[in-house]
Amino acid sequence: MIAKLVLDKKREGYALGSAEIREFVEGFVRGDIPDYQMSALAMAVCCRGMNERETADLTEAMRNSGRCLEWDVTTADKHSTGGVGDKLSLVVQPLAAACGVFVPSLTGRGLGITGGTADKLETIPGYDASLSLDDFGRVVREVGVSMTVQTDEITPADKKLYALRDVTGTVASIPLITASILSKKLAEGAGTLVFDVKCGSGAFMKTREEAVQLANSLVSGAKAAGRKAAALVTDMSAPLGRAVGNANEVAEALAWLGSNRVELASFRVAPTLSDPNLTLNDPISLCVELAAMMVSLAKDMDLAAARALCREKLADGSALAMFERMVAAQGGDLDAFARLLRKPVFKFRIQAMRSGYVTAIDAERVGKVALALGAGRLEKSDRIDPLAGIALDVVRGDRVSVGSPLATLVSSRGPDGLERCAADLLKAFTISSSAPADTGLLLERITGCTTGATDAPSVAGA
Amino acid sequence: MIAKLVLDKKREGYALGSAEIREFVEGFVRGDIPDYQMSALAMAVCCRGMNERETADLTEAMRNSGRCLEWDVTTADKHSTGGVGDKLSLVVQPLAAACGVFVPSLTGRGLGITGGTADKLETIPGYDASLSLDDFGRVVREVGVSMTVQTDEITPADKKLYALRDVTGTVASIPLITASILSKKLAEGAGTLVFDVKCGSGAFMKTREEAVQLANSLVSGAKAAGRKAAALVTDMSAPLGRAVGNANEVAEALAWLGSNRVELASFRVAPTLSDPNLTLNDPISLCVELAAMMVSLAKDMDLAAARALCREKLADGSALAMFERMVAAQGGDLDAFARLLRKPVFKFRIQAMRSGYVTAIDAERVGKVALALGAGRLEKSDRIDPLAGIALDVVRGDRVSVGSPLATLVSSRGPDGLERCAADLLKAFTISSSAPADTGLLLERITGCTTGATDAPSVAGA
Repeated sequence: MIAKLVLDKKREGYALGSAEIREFVEGFVRGDIPDYQMSALAMAVCCRGMNERETADLTEAMRNSGRCLEWDVTTADKHSTGGVGDKLSLVVQPLAAACGVFVPSLTGRGLGITGGTADKLETIPGYDASLSLDDFGRVVREVGVSMTVQTDEITPADKKLYALRDVTGTVASIPLITASILSKKLAEGAGTLVFDVKCGSGAFMKTREEAVQLANSLVSGAKAAGRKAAALVTDMSAPLGRAVGNANEVAEALAWLGSNRVELASFRVAPTLSDPNLTLNDPISLCVELAAMMVSLAKDMDLAAARALCREKLADGSALAMFERMVAAQGGDLDAFARLLRKPVFKFRIQAMRSGYVTAIDAERVGKVALALGAGRLEKSDRIDPLAGIALDVVRGDRVSVGSPLATLVSSRGPDGLERCAADLLKAFTISSSAPADTGLLLERITGCTTGATDAPSVAGA
Repeated sequence: MIAKLVLDKKREGYALGSAEIREFVEGFVRGDIPDYQMSALAMAVCCRGMNERETADLTEAMRNSGRCLEWDVTTADKHSTGGVGDKLSLVVQPLAAACGVFVPSLTGRGLGITGGTADKLETIPGYDASLSLDDFGRVVREVGVSMTVQTDEITPADKKLYALRDVTGTVASIPLITASILSKKLAEGAGTLVFDVKCGSGAFMKTREEAVQLANSLVSGAKAAGRKAAALVTDMSAPLGRAVGNANEVAEALAWLGSNRVELASFRVAPTLSDPNLTLNDPISLCVELAAMMVSLAKDMDLAAARALCREKLADGSALAMFERMVAAQGGDLDAFARLLRKPVFKFRIQAMRSGYVTAIDAERVGKVALALGAGRLEKSDRIDPLAGIALDVVRGDRVSVGSPLATLVSSRGPDGLERCAADLLKAFTISSSAPADTGLLLERITGCTTGATDAPSVAGA
């Protein structure tokens, strides 16, 4: 493999061979392919695309750059492309585990407006989200579910490539995003993969078209690698639920799981479930649907039966118990967490300036304000304030009067800047005289029309 | 300017701003923009293109990265994109100078199948093709013409970028090629620029469409920078003339200039000139046409009058005298050169295997054989054998019988490999029963339809 000829080929829009892709990735990890050749390839892929077979080859090469786990039990995992207020994993993973599926979930940290499940879990005092892979395996087997940050042993190629893509304008490519997500999930070893591809202002994919493309690419890539897979494309134009931050998102997830351990006044949980056959217009219904998809695929069970089972395990406290056992197994102390939530913080409440219906809550703006309050990272090395964040008093569709509370900003750093953040946050709310059409959270259901890798000519992807 | 945002913009196909381009190039030269960002930009430009205004901005930024010469006399230069047997500069530059135009000609070394004018001139014992810019200026003023290799003071940005493009598959881009060629020519300072864009198997541009694109891009770029400019697109499917190598090409150029100093038997010069208004079917006519374009533009003279002047200065020995004065001013000894040509060498003559008309002589194959014989460089650090090369006994259109000589391979290294090279070279000749249509050397005449920079959206260029 001569790197320059591979670059010529992709520049001209031709599909690369399997060996070319494998050797390019291997050379990059070894350091034989310098950064300037890999960044040129990444840019060529952004501009010229990759077909399914090439994407599968890239994914496989990246997966094989590190350790790959194997399981002798029935496993499933759910992956979200990330959004604002997206604490769904905290509910979905234990819920699926409570239904008898083992859930090995290697998760990530937040960057920008997108929160990270590991950061959220680490607000539980004592919780170890940096398990060794051996300990991770032990917790999965003993408890049924474990959530921890992927170690450096998993897909080092992805880590090195992502750092380069981040500084060379080559993040926006469906094949590269697919390979990055999927290589990690394949290395993790779960037999079933369910993807929640977020779409809208608070997500990485801003348009429905891009999100559907990515969802299809992830599902067909996972299937090409021999896994069972499906995806939902779901709305991320408004925050998910009422809490945006870290500790407060864990608290909201506990509320959805039915816990009465923590102070939940600000979340006003609506435990009613909408009809999943129509729309999923509340986040708990979406949690149930995602868990049901995992269970249905992993256990070859009818989806309606899996859905009923999940509802049962959520209602009877099994999912909550599973979450509590996982936290305990990883050293977390939920009593100390409840005390943490009672720590004094600086708050600022914003109110409606006019009466009407809340027709939109801009997720991107909410995410940026949460970031400014200290709930997220601009740079990887930034530290997160566990208590900082936003508690929404309203959700889309609510009716408000002048002076009705809209949201509360929370910071533990001090009152400085809170007012400016509040003014910013106010702009996230659109209040109109007529009620919004209920669109629900579910935009598309992807079960994977294509059954495997094809070798069609590359086409330019977004 | 944030490099990553510039990369995002070009990846999405938008035109970059003038300041963005200037700051990116400046940062790259300073070392603030790392290679991996510049290679990503180069790949994005290959895939998404650049409009005329962007190309002009890139050219200007690269020109300004080093020293820029200025002249207080009327100057012109001719640039060829390079080919096999292309010794035209050795005739054109002194011929234009003999017509009263000053010719400051910074030239290059050969790489691959494309020969370099500096390498050819250096086969003249004593000839210094590495003048300082001050000495270069002195020779131009005192003699009228100087040909020397561009120093590191000229366009360091181009040197650094070209080295990177060479290893990242980003050479094939009309805007990048334009900026590379033009930045050097603009820094050299000639007021008139005439481009000979070669097209065919022995040239970098393989198709007429690409060659015309490049010629238009060079002419409009030069005009946007305030220079007078025109271009010819000429055929490079067969070698130019009969000599391919280095010393032998200088000998052929001397023959075209009318010298009787060297042994010319193998070149059988045809000093008749074809009608330039019809086709240019011999290389001497092409030399006259290129020199006439330089003189016509530089001195605002009618092209037909300039052509007549050039024919006169070629016929009366003025151009030869100019070449001899330049060689003497740069330390070269043409008597010693004539002795060099008489040195014993290893020769192998190939003969026609059938009778008929020579309808094609594949320039690329001839160039590769010359390279294998030692006449060129595969790597920049390779040394050239001055006497190695090929002397063609026939040109396209000639009639041959079985056993007629076709060409002689020359090597000073020894007989090893000569036979294999000879077998290769034989494949370059196509001999058919009917005579080829006389296409001539001139494919297109480009005077520049566009008058300056426009800011149209970028389109993908080859």
